[in-house]
Amino acid sequence: MKIDGGTTAWMIVATAMVLLMTPGLAFFYGGMTRAKSVLNMMMMSFGAIITVSITWMLFGHSLAFTDNPSSALNNFVGGFDALGLQSLVDTATKDDGTGMPSLIFSAFQMTFAIITVALISGAIADRAKFGAWILFTVVWATVVYFPVAHWVWGTGWLNTMGIEDFAGGTVVHINAGAAALALALVIGKRQGWRKEPMRPHNLTLVLLGAGLLWFGWFGFNAGSELAVDGTAALAFLNTQVATAVAAGAWLVVEKLRDGHATSLGVASGAVAGLVAITPACGFVDPWAAMLIGLLAGAICAFAVGLKYKLGYDDSLDVVGVHLVGGVIGAVALGFLAAYPFLDQQSEGLFYGGGFGQLGLQVLGPIAVGGYSFVLTWIIGKIIDKTVGFRVPAENEVTGIDVTTHAETGYDLGTVYASGVASSNGPTAPAPKKVDA
Amino acid sequence: MKIDGGTTAWMIVATAMVLLMTPGLAFFYGGMTRAKSVLNMMMMSFGAIITVSITWMLFGHSLAFTDNPSSALNNFVGGFDALGLQSLVDTATKDDGTGMPSLIFSAFQMTFAIITVALISGAIADRAKFGAWILFTVVWATVVYFPVAHWVWGTGWLNTMGIEDFAGGTVVHINAGAAALALALVIGKRQGWRKEPMRPHNLTLVLLGAGLLWFGWFGFNAGSELAVDGTAALAFLNTQVATAVAAGAWLVVEKLRDGHATSLGVASGAVAGLVAITPACGFVDPWAAMLIGLLAGAICAFAVGLKYKLGYDDSLDVVGVHLVGGVIGAVALGFLAAYPFLDQQSEGLFYGGGFGQLGLQVLGPIAVGGYSFVLTWIIGKIIDKTVGFRVPAENEVTGIDVTTHAETGYDLGTVYASGVASSNGPTAPAPKKVDA
Amino acid sequence: MKIDGGTTAWMIVATAMVLLMTPGLAFFYGGMTRAKSVLNMMMMSFGAIITVSITWMLFGHSLAFTDNPSSALNNFVGGFDALGLQSLVDTATKDDGTGMPSLIFSAFQMTFAIITVALISGAIADRAKFGAWILFTVVWATVVYFPVAHWVWGTGWLNTMGIEDFAGGTVVHINAGAAALALALVIGKRQGWRKEPMRPHNLTLVLLGAGLLWFGWFGFNAGSELAVDGTAALAFLNTQVATAVAAGAWLVVEKLRDGHATSLGVASGAVAGLVAITPACGFVDPWAAMLIGLLAGAICAFAVGLKYKLGYDDSLDVVGVHLVGGVIGAVALGFLAAYPFLDQQSEGLFYGGGFGQLGLQVLGPIAVGGYSFVLTWIIGKIIDKTVGFRVPAENEVTGIDVTTHAETGYDLGTVYASGVASSNGPTAPAPKKVDA
Repeated sequence: MKIDGGTTAWMIVATAMVLLMTPGLAFFYGGMTRAKSVLNMMMMSFGAIITVSITWMLFGHSLAFTDNPSSALNNFVGGFDALGLQSLVDTATKDDGTGMPSLIFSAFQMTFAIITVALISGAIADRAKFGAWILFTVVWATVVYFPVAHWVWGTGWLNTMGIEDFAGGTVVHINAGAAALALALVIGKRQGWRKEPMRPHNLTLVLLGAGLLWFGWFGFNAGSELAVDGTAALAFLNTQVATAVAAGAWLVVEKLRDGHATSLGVASGAVAGLVAITPACGFVDPWAAMLIGLLAGAICAFAVGLKYKLGYDDSLDVVGVHLVGGVIGAVALGFLAAYPFLDQQSEGLFYGGGFGQLGLQVLGPIAVGGYSFVLTWIIGKIIDKTVGFRVPAENEVTGIDVTTHAETGYDLGTVYASGVASSNGPTAPAPKKVDA
Repeated sequence: MKIDGGTTAWMIVATAMVLLMTPGLAFFYGGMTRAKSVLNMMMMSFGAIITVSITWMLFGHSLAFTDNPSSALNNFVGGFDALGLQSLVDTATKDDGTGMPSLIFSAFQMTFAIITVALISGAIADRAKFGAWILFTVVWATVVYFPVAHWVWGTGWLNTMGIEDFAGGTVVHINAGAAALALALVIGKRQGWRKEPMRPHNLTLVLLGAGLLWFGWFGFNAGSELAVDGTAALAFLNTQVATAVAAGAWLVVEKLRDGHATSLGVASGAVAGLVAITPACGFVDPWAAMLIGLLAGAICAFAVGLKYKLGYDDSLDVVGVHLVGGVIGAVALGFLAAYPFLDQQSEGLFYGGGFGQLGLQVLGPIAVGGYSFVLTWIIGKIIDKTVGFRVPAENEVTGIDVTTHAETGYDLGTVYASGVASSNGPTAPAPKKVDA
Repeated sequence: MKIDGGTTAWMIVATAMVLLMTPGLAFFYGGMTRAKSVLNMMMMSFGAIITVSITWMLFGHSLAFTDNPSSALNNFVGGFDALGLQSLVDTATKDDGTGMPSLIFSAFQMTFAIITVALISGAIADRAKFGAWILFTVVWATVVYFPVAHWVWGTGWLNTMGIEDFAGGTVVHINAGAAALALALVIGKRQGWRKEPMRPHNLTLVLLGAGLLWFGWFGFNAGSELAVDGTAALAFLNTQVATAVAAGAWLVVEKLRDGHATSLGVASGAVAGLVAITPACGFVDPWAAMLIGLLAGAICAFAVGLKYKLGYDDSLDVVGVHLVGGVIGAVALGFLAAYPFLDQQSEGLFYGGGFGQLGLQVLGPIAVGGYSFVLTWIIGKIIDKTVGFRVPAENEVTGIDVTTHAETGYDLGTVYASGVASSNGPTAPAPKKVDA
């Protein structure tokens, strides 16, 4: 199979779209924090872009997507054939059976690794040392993400068993959600949690992030077909309808429960829908996509309240949205998989596939979620006991932006600093600019 | 014709680009409101994404784009063959003569329906019940948009007669603009209109919205060719030059009339140009695109003042930009259509086509605008008389964000709430956070 | 070669992506100014979109990309065959050997001209007359950009000599950076420079701009291959790793030098990496891309401090990032060019190519940078002596937004203007809205 122009054109764009998701996530998360920690929140996402891009190129691609056939380890992790990606450059104009240069496949998969790591940061808003986070991203990508990608999408044990995950419900969302839970437990609660209001400081930024995530997610989901065909089209359409239904369901739950439909709810519901349809988008009929969206929107709207009941400070609801949403989608496949264009695949329970695929779809989340939770807990504890994972309490109270990064997100107080009107700048670090 | 890789790659991306336009519109509109209603404004767009995605999948596609040949109704509305889109899934890998899976055509058209509905919301900023708006979107899409799309782009009467609308000047912009006028009349003016200043609260958000709209519009206009060819390229280039000229023309009008060229002007002028070139972009030469942009920028810059003369509160100028701009583009086609690559088409007056096409290009706006205005007025009145369309006056004055959604857009006042500096949070709902 | 679907699909999207970069630049720059000049900063970018789109269509494409073979001038500037682009329309469906309609090639190149001009504006934040800037953009594009594009990418003298510039390190970044230096010298320093704090007023806007630039840059760099093949894939991957390394390097320099890694640093480092890899992205191996990123991030982090030593107010660091970064990338090619898929090309010093290519890669920046600097200085002086380039000092102090554009970026003070809470609006132009 020669390089196919349509496939390559689509995959280049899809890769760029998925890369845009991580800045999108930075805005989505950043808007949800208090104004005093928006920069730190965004820098955790940008930091993940930096470290995961580098580790992916150096060894991540190789550990995830090369074979290691002579070793019993191959069920668990790939080999070393693509270290530094030079071997992919050397064969970039040759036929490798995918219709696109391997470098684009690698770049596409790199973007998945980046956002998975970045997603975890939502659980530890306002309180993590930036250097410790950077260290964590390198270790976690190496020890957790690269192997898990090999399990499910490479030649690892879950793929061999037949678990299905179209675009990353297990590899990305359950993986990140379980890690978020572990890290929130290791690091502990924010100062003042449940005592002070900690509501989003900029909901326009949250909706901007949600909009960019939604846009990029079409690259994520339809791009995971790795081709331009009917399945890519189905994945696209299913992504849209599931997301719309989930956002609507979340708003309905809010309205009935709280009396108000909120903009934070529409953003959260949309992301929950996007998460839940991710593993299923290329395998189910549109009505099933709507059902998955309905379940995700309604259940996650309740699941985000669990942290208050169970007492962990998953600050921006990574567990309630990504872990729960990911499980909904992965398990739903066991019932609803219709595999419309891929007859050789197993089908879900409702399509006559019996309990085999359903069992696998339950096993996958348990295996990946369990592995991720345990390893993340260990990594987090080691970092916390050595370099320390939290900033001092007084820095957190003052604001991690100014204490860690020596910046504040906004300085709107200078508009008339030398001019005619008085202005009490809301985020000005010093009152000397005010000329009341 | 088999599935064509290039066509499908382009149409998948174009669809995602058009979907991004509606969040873009949310920011464009949201920034123009006062700070106390930015969330409600944005949620009207996100609400339209939810309801129109769902109705499109359930029956909208079928009503707009299927044939109903045995029925005299087919001139007016399509049939029921594609309810739930399952029939499109079943044929997604088969040849349907378009070079792409029908599911992608459906998703592409879905995005047009979404943004048309969302556009209307600009006329009723700050004062509509959210539930009433949601209800309106479902009814309006069903009764107005789906039939009108069938008239012009399906097998309905205007298409049969030969009216041309390359990318939606009539179906989208005249349709939405006329509806906006009707709804503004039904709902009435904002509290304090023309007495209090109601200037944009965040012009960076307005320009962000304009930038995303501009980007997505290339998917809208060049994507409407439904292929990758010279016409798509022409539509792209014409879109850019018309928009640039329109934005410039608006600024010149402002400078000459008011003494200042404004950022709101550059954003409004760009959108006016994008609107006006929409019906014409694939049919005219570049010099004609510039002329259309010039007319749109200059005329719309005056048209947005009409509301003050005529006394309707079209809050964010949907009428002055989308209705007027859409009419300019649709009628200009009657003069300027050169159909460079489609010789079988009728040509405009200046290209020897006589008055035939010009007459059709006048008829289209009258038919669509008239239908949309009347039906919207009726729908609006019914909703207003039953569930009510406006929030109580005191809620509007206090701010619809906090009274309807229990949120405020910004909470910048917590940066130093527990810290060193004093801060009078500009949008804080309660002064208790201030520790002056 | 007929129109190729994959190539055309990719190039249409790449063009839209590069166009989005200029609004992205508006946000990147706009967030870095003080709040009182954010609108003017953004409008300089939008103004460049307007004027350069129009001049490109009228004569820019022709001057840059047509041949003028009978004239000795052809080494310096192209001819007049494509004035108004009508000739490209007339041949849009014909084979021109590129696999895509010439109109798309033209639109793609137009977007490069736009952003090059817009880049310059960062050097003159807060203090330029808007009309003078608009005039400057027209003259500079005509006298500097269009010829320089012809030198390097057309049939001009630098191309003939064999200088390599994959995506615009010389044509775009060195060109804009040298112009920025000249213009900063002509216009002089901001009122209060080095005496008052002039820190970024909205770092979320800076990061948004950086994110959109990063996304669009894949269109810029991978799109410059003008095809979908292994080289486009390599350009994409190299862009990502170089940028990640550069952003990381900048943060490390900041941390070691200042004790803090900042969000402004991560954004600046990313842009420095994007700039430096631009000329090299399709010609080097991934390890070399990382090296280029490392050099760019580390060196530019120091280079932005030069202005304080040398005393020019390059307000937003166009020189330190674009001129320095562009030179790093252009010269690095002389050492590191491996031309993996283009064997006929000369190779860099480290790949056995000798000093020939290295000499050319030094000559290019000198020629383009020198020409741009001198011509820009002359153009700037003429404008300054005739219509004047600076606003009055009191307008600059009051704020160029309100004095030039009669607007302010933000008006967050109305949230509770008529409501319950008190609010001292930070950017409100008059205190009458405050109801303490």
